[in-house]
Amino acid sequence: MDTIGIGRPVLERGLLHASLSDPAMESMNLLNQVAERYPKAVSLAAGRPFEGFYDLEDMNRYLNVFCSYLTRERGLSERDVLRILYQYGPTKGVIGELIARHLAVDEAIEAQPAAVVVTVGAQEAMYLVLRALRAGPQDAVLAVDPTYVGLTGAALLAEMPVLPVPVAEDGIDLDALVVTLRRARAAGRRVRACYLIPDFANPIGLSMSADNRVRLLEVARSEDLLLIEDNAYGVFHPGAERPRTLRSLDRDGRVIYIGSFAKTGVAGARVGFVVADQPVAAAAGPGGLLADELGKLKSMLTVNTSPIAQAVIGGKLIAHDFSLVAANRRERAVYAANLQAVLTGLDRRLGGLDGVGWNRPEGGFFVVLTVPFEVDDALLEQAAEEFGVLFTPMRHFHSTPAGDRQLRLSISNLTPEVIDEGLDRLAALIRHRLA
Amino acid sequence: MDTIGIGRPVLERGLLHASLSDPAMESMNLLNQVAERYPKAVSLAAGRPFEGFYDLEDMNRYLNVFCSYLTRERGLSERDVLRILYQYGPTKGVIGELIARHLAVDEAIEAQPAAVVVTVGAQEAMYLVLRALRAGPQDAVLAVDPTYVGLTGAALLAEMPVLPVPVAEDGIDLDALVVTLRRARAAGRRVRACYLIPDFANPIGLSMSADNRVRLLEVARSEDLLLIEDNAYGVFHPGAERPRTLRSLDRDGRVIYIGSFAKTGVAGARVGFVVADQPVAAAAGPGGLLADELGKLKSMLTVNTSPIAQAVIGGKLIAHDFSLVAANRRERAVYAANLQAVLTGLDRRLGGLDGVGWNRPEGGFFVVLTVPFEVDDALLEQAAEEFGVLFTPMRHFHSTPAGDRQLRLSISNLTPEVIDEGLDRLAALIRHRLA
Repeated sequence: MDTIGIGRPVLERGLLHASLSDPAMESMNLLNQVAERYPKAVSLAAGRPFEGFYDLEDMNRYLNVFCSYLTRERGLSERDVLRILYQYGPTKGVIGELIARHLAVDEAIEAQPAAVVVTVGAQEAMYLVLRALRAGPQDAVLAVDPTYVGLTGAALLAEMPVLPVPVAEDGIDLDALVVTLRRARAAGRRVRACYLIPDFANPIGLSMSADNRVRLLEVARSEDLLLIEDNAYGVFHPGAERPRTLRSLDRDGRVIYIGSFAKTGVAGARVGFVVADQPVAAAAGPGGLLADELGKLKSMLTVNTSPIAQAVIGGKLIAHDFSLVAANRRERAVYAANLQAVLTGLDRRLGGLDGVGWNRPEGGFFVVLTVPFEVDDALLEQAAEEFGVLFTPMRHFHSTPAGDRQLRLSISNLTPEVIDEGLDRLAALIRHRLA
Repeated sequence: MDTIGIGRPVLERGLLHASLSDPAMESMNLLNQVAERYPKAVSLAAGRPFEGFYDLEDMNRYLNVFCSYLTRERGLSERDVLRILYQYGPTKGVIGELIARHLAVDEAIEAQPAAVVVTVGAQEAMYLVLRALRAGPQDAVLAVDPTYVGLTGAALLAEMPVLPVPVAEDGIDLDALVVTLRRARAAGRRVRACYLIPDFANPIGLSMSADNRVRLLEVARSEDLLLIEDNAYGVFHPGAERPRTLRSLDRDGRVIYIGSFAKTGVAGARVGFVVADQPVAAAAGPGGLLADELGKLKSMLTVNTSPIAQAVIGGKLIAHDFSLVAANRRERAVYAANLQAVLTGLDRRLGGLDGVGWNRPEGGFFVVLTVPFEVDDALLEQAAEEFGVLFTPMRHFHSTPAGDRQLRLSISNLTPEVIDEGLDRLAALIRHRLA
């Protein structure tokens, strides 16, 4: 430990873990600080779920439903139920079976409950998977670029390089994937997996086509690659026919599937999960599933996910016959209406403006705007201070300059009035910069 | 990724993170497996809190108390309260102020709420601290040997070597600490901190004397060393006069303090915390507290601790005027009675037996027995199968052979009948081995 003299020790950040000095970490902090400094600005930045339907009664109801399930369906005594809620619990969690039923109902995914690890949000799942796969400095993970900041963070913590693969119109650029993979392997890297969000990816907002999904699985098979599928937004496809997840299309066990209940369940429960049924072979001792290895890592990290929090999510799943599509009927309508309001609001305010354009996702939480000038933190600061509006510069998610003139808008936690006000202010900023 | 042929991929454990093949991890798994295989054995192994007072009404009460506090004391609207419980929350948590009040009331610790990071149990706090302090391969942490298995696990995950310092009669062997520290530094190691549990340490069961605490702080100052104090059991000192924590004695800011609500609050909430008010200096940009750096790491690991779980703990703190000593009046009586019953039960059954002895902690959860034969996993297996009793071989916590003929008994989650039955069986095993 280095200190300034003896006495009160002062730690040097340069002598703390490298992730704390990483530019990605700095920029995420900066974004948060801007949001804190301008609390009255209209935020089109935060990708938080809609808050309008929160009801304190729901939590009691979900807890009660879960307790009834334990007594009626699993035959537990009142004492056993209390033990499950109040005591330390199994590392892999207590709602693996309920999650498996939800995956069967909503996603046509067959998952054995033993392959499910309940985690403290999808973030812990990402970290566990990367930590497990990172055995040495030659290990790396591929990720679609631009990449979700949570994946970047988990990789920083696990000290695992992220090799970018560009997006394509219809999902991931498969040719670039193969080139990147082979080049990395030729250079001595062990490429352990490729991370992606097939449905309404954060931050780009778009989904992979059905064809791109099938072809990605073929590439994964021919190139011998694992895929990490992160599905936080799939429920928010508008129609009844939603595209199939990679995991439900996978016949080879190549997909590690990460789920989140932050947007579909209750964000404050901080419950996510990973399905990892890949077999693990051990030189000595019994093998098992990758899920068991992730559970061992979790026992050294958070021991187990709060069973009280799991009970809230488990109760919500049961209360809606295991369908989060059904549970989010009202939210899906809000998100669809918000998305339309933002898209038509952009059309009305900025349509036809030279060099200004935006993508048109069919659902999800995000829209990406392209403008003919740099979108950096200085612009964000000006937007917050002079125009009272917040967004997210896309450059923070990119490893190339491709996002330097782009910004991300979040549509999830807005109302029609806020959308109008926010877009008025954003349009004023853009016209000001163009003038 | 290595696979057996193309097709269904099989992962080699040897190509997963090294912690998963570590002997410490293997042995902990083995212990759990023995417990699972013999569910009818009397367990004197698990250090779980007492379950006899669990009451489902408590959870509702604590949640309501916390919500009232938010509206009455912090002046929040009903909508704000719902947002705190249901939405994503601040990374450092929402009950830092309540924890600071608890520390003032119970431990005479002055902690600014901004220095508190609420974590997913003490385990996440341990990992965050080690991850922050581990900047390179030369970084190491000292720990009193035998060491809590959670610290060993966190260090494995953070890839940080643990250098053992032997226990002494009255706490930590200070001469050995200085020798170990200087030797490590001379060998080019950066020794970032020394981890210890001053009160009823897991697994040894004993507490540091008041004198040993003061002298440790003097050594920390003269040798320029940080201390990581883990206080999971301090509330379970029997009398009204409890020894002072290192943190409350510390005048130099040398103590990073880790707390757990698993034994004193609700284990199923999975809430712990760390107080880290050490200043951090940055080459560029603003510095801050170590707590802020831990918060950044947490944002990449679990984002935030479930505010629902925090509300349960916050409500329990408020409901008992911030005193966990008061909140655990009944539990403290149970633990004191159980400890006495185990000690007198051992006296009665094994007193005077050649080569058999045990320590006599004044409180806490653990008693350590010494026997004149090897205590290994084979003995545990025999104990479970033939004698129907479980304990924990101490060798799993030691880096030296010092614990090879010792076993740990947990007294926390027992009743008088179970203690009698368990000790009868344990005595039968010991007499069998001695015969």
